[in-house]
Amino acid sequence: MSGFPVDTVFAALAVRLGERASRSNAIVAAHGASESYHAAHPPDIVAFPQSTEEVAAIVSICAAHGAPIVPWGAGTSLEGNASAVHGGVCIDFAEMNRVLAINAEDLDCRVQPGITRKRLNTELRDTGLFFPIDPGADASIGGMTSTRGSGTMAVRYGTMRDNVMALEVVLADGRIIRTSRRAKKSAAGYDLTRLFVGAEGTLGVVTEITLRLHPVPEAMSAVVCPFGSFEGAVSTAIAVIQAGIPVARIELLDEVMIRGVNAYAKLGIVEAPTLFLEFHGTPAAVAEQAEAVREIAHEHGALGYDSATRTEDRNRLWTARDNTLYAGTGLRPGSKALITDVCVPVSRLAECLVATKRDIEASGLIAPIVGHVGDGNFHTLILVDPGAPDEIARAQALHERMVARALDLDGTSTGEHGIGTGKMAFLERELGEAVDVMRTIKRALDPKGIMNPGKIFK
Amino acid sequence: MSGFPVDTVFAALAVRLGERASRSNAIVAAHGASESYHAAHPPDIVAFPQSTEEVAAIVSICAAHGAPIVPWGAGTSLEGNASAVHGGVCIDFAEMNRVLAINAEDLDCRVQPGITRKRLNTELRDTGLFFPIDPGADASIGGMTSTRGSGTMAVRYGTMRDNVMALEVVLADGRIIRTSRRAKKSAAGYDLTRLFVGAEGTLGVVTEITLRLHPVPEAMSAVVCPFGSFEGAVSTAIAVIQAGIPVARIELLDEVMIRGVNAYAKLGIVEAPTLFLEFHGTPAAVAEQAEAVREIAHEHGALGYDSATRTEDRNRLWTARDNTLYAGTGLRPGSKALITDVCVPVSRLAECLVATKRDIEASGLIAPIVGHVGDGNFHTLILVDPGAPDEIARAQALHERMVARALDLDGTSTGEHGIGTGKMAFLERELGEAVDVMRTIKRALDPKGIMNPGKIFK
Repeated sequence: MSGFPVDTVFAALAVRLGERASRSNAIVAAHGASESYHAAHPPDIVAFPQSTEEVAAIVSICAAHGAPIVPWGAGTSLEGNASAVHGGVCIDFAEMNRVLAINAEDLDCRVQPGITRKRLNTELRDTGLFFPIDPGADASIGGMTSTRGSGTMAVRYGTMRDNVMALEVVLADGRIIRTSRRAKKSAAGYDLTRLFVGAEGTLGVVTEITLRLHPVPEAMSAVVCPFGSFEGAVSTAIAVIQAGIPVARIELLDEVMIRGVNAYAKLGIVEAPTLFLEFHGTPAAVAEQAEAVREIAHEHGALGYDSATRTEDRNRLWTARDNTLYAGTGLRPGSKALITDVCVPVSRLAECLVATKRDIEASGLIAPIVGHVGDGNFHTLILVDPGAPDEIARAQALHERMVARALDLDGTSTGEHGIGTGKMAFLERELGEAVDVMRTIKRALDPKGIMNPGKIFK
Repeated sequence: MSGFPVDTVFAALAVRLGERASRSNAIVAAHGASESYHAAHPPDIVAFPQSTEEVAAIVSICAAHGAPIVPWGAGTSLEGNASAVHGGVCIDFAEMNRVLAINAEDLDCRVQPGITRKRLNTELRDTGLFFPIDPGADASIGGMTSTRGSGTMAVRYGTMRDNVMALEVVLADGRIIRTSRRAKKSAAGYDLTRLFVGAEGTLGVVTEITLRLHPVPEAMSAVVCPFGSFEGAVSTAIAVIQAGIPVARIELLDEVMIRGVNAYAKLGIVEAPTLFLEFHGTPAAVAEQAEAVREIAHEHGALGYDSATRTEDRNRLWTARDNTLYAGTGLRPGSKALITDVCVPVSRLAECLVATKRDIEASGLIAPIVGHVGDGNFHTLILVDPGAPDEIARAQALHERMVARALDLDGTSTGEHGIGTGKMAFLERELGEAVDVMRTIKRALDPKGIMNPGKIFK
């Protein structure tokens, strides 16, 4: 049972939004599911605003009646971040998905939260600029902002923390604020932009995002580099980072994941621990970087070093990488993935990855590994039968050991997926009393507790 | 009169700190002055802690008696950020100035707030790494953190926002927290690190800082490039940024500032609007960048393009740049500088700078210009006779017109110096209701209002 008057709230929303407020079974069910193994929690109502003013009106109605508010982008989050665990009103940004301004001369743009990263890059096509953050899924910019997402190119271009310049936010009482102006840097007061980036909608609803863009590099080349040993691949990645080579991407896939990718995307590459790399820059810089990495890889037992400079070959490679979630679950039809997301200092990565690999092998579970190893971040996709509680418990135990190991190495339980509901159990262990400060801020900005409740902390 | 029992607080501090708590006239006076034109506001007491635990004890004593707390680094801030406007206890970090850990393999280090950036770089000398943030002054890392400082290399390496990875903070109630672990990225809860960076000590006292370091580039070269017109210099800077050339520094000095620098540092360069540039990378990349910039500069009327690759020549150039505050005030002996700090989107920079230059000329005041133009940020040093209120009023009016112009161009009143007391009047105009959110956070984390009161907002 939801703890708010659903009929009253729905009636008020319908007055304002007409058919863009919905209680249809199909629609609420679609907004409770996710791509992960977490249980579904549908909202009571789904609203489809078309403007910031409509979002403010929705929030005001919810505030008046104590209804939970759950923002929704593309539904690709992995930790139940947009799950309506307490019911309430889901705000779906499907109809707020436009590019509002492109300032090519300033390398920035302003967008609505519902636009996906691929659509944004399509709209930027003629500007000579691109938005590099690539979490794999075609996530919405709003969702990526709220989970502080990153992905394959973070090693070169940073995370959403670094690429969000300003936000428009609807607060829990319906007021609308802008967190910053468009200057590239500012020392004017508290960094509210960074406070809302990664807050998972628990402090306010993001309604506009100003993003930093980057010039499309003059030259790009990709490399597939298989290794005779898992350790060789990991050590190569670490040495590349420590040498300061500005790779644009450096992704590790273990032989299990390569098997999945081969089956899913017909990539036809050797089933060995493999690095996928990409280099961006002038033609001379790209050649220089590729050669420097080749030497390091050779020293660590690389079995090959295959370049792809043609756009279609590069795209095929990175599309395969982007689909590792589906490629991974494809290894066990009918399974769902418990996806881990630990991130450790690069100097501890080899230790962390090798111990994890052994732990997976000992567990008897199937759990392919794919990692943004340049940042010390990697995922395992622990494949479970969603109807087998015993297996889920074993997967969770494996996950817990992984997080404990990462924390022992001064790392984090989540490099990029956020806490959501799935990693709440680890937050206090990771940050101790700092979590109290987060709670204090939460209570100050959302005294009624209506903004995406049940996420990050209880 | 201070609104707290000074004798009682001093007695309690003396029990804990012995002679490291001081009320001597000379010491309190030294902690009220600053390098800017702002009036002096000495604290009642200065404390010199040697550990985080001592800082926590000081804060607890102050909290018990309602005494204001003002953290102090190197005293180089420019907006009264460390001025004891309500009296109270100044916490001077002179005895907390150590490097606590260098993790060369992870490109990071952990330091105490009192260490200055130059000392830090001296200690890093044998690691192959450096800390690039260079605000000119030999500021303390704690002060740079708390003002969200940046400076000449921000165009390539970012600001303190980008280079602080984690903080230890003593809260207003004496509790000690860590904002993050040492992983390069994390999506675990609110970004408390970024909340305290730039908070000017109003939310807590920073006691340890984990910093990102960068590999010393294989090659570096600097260039001095004078122009026939101010517009030519500005347009060159903008074109370089828009072309995506990854310059390490690109500083504009107008002919007035060059005159000051020549006199102060015997630089002996032509008195014309001038760009100082620096390039970092492999030898090939540095040569490629320098050549690309030379072509752009030539198109915009450069009068020369003199390279300096020898370390001593580069150092001489950047030392001269670092001393522009003294070089500027040297143009008018006995003067103090009202230093402006607007920052606008790069596409609006030419308009902003040219209008500013005209406004200065019409004002009859002397105000050399020096700017981090790659970021759209520039300073004017409006030279005033500190004993001439009428002149200070004219300088303030010039400053206000500059800020109004920057805000009209979607910019900020402060790119890097912070609000302090000096720019409080502009904050609401810049960020509107977002300032209420800052106030709400301030009240939640510092309910007694003891943390550096009278800064950022009233």
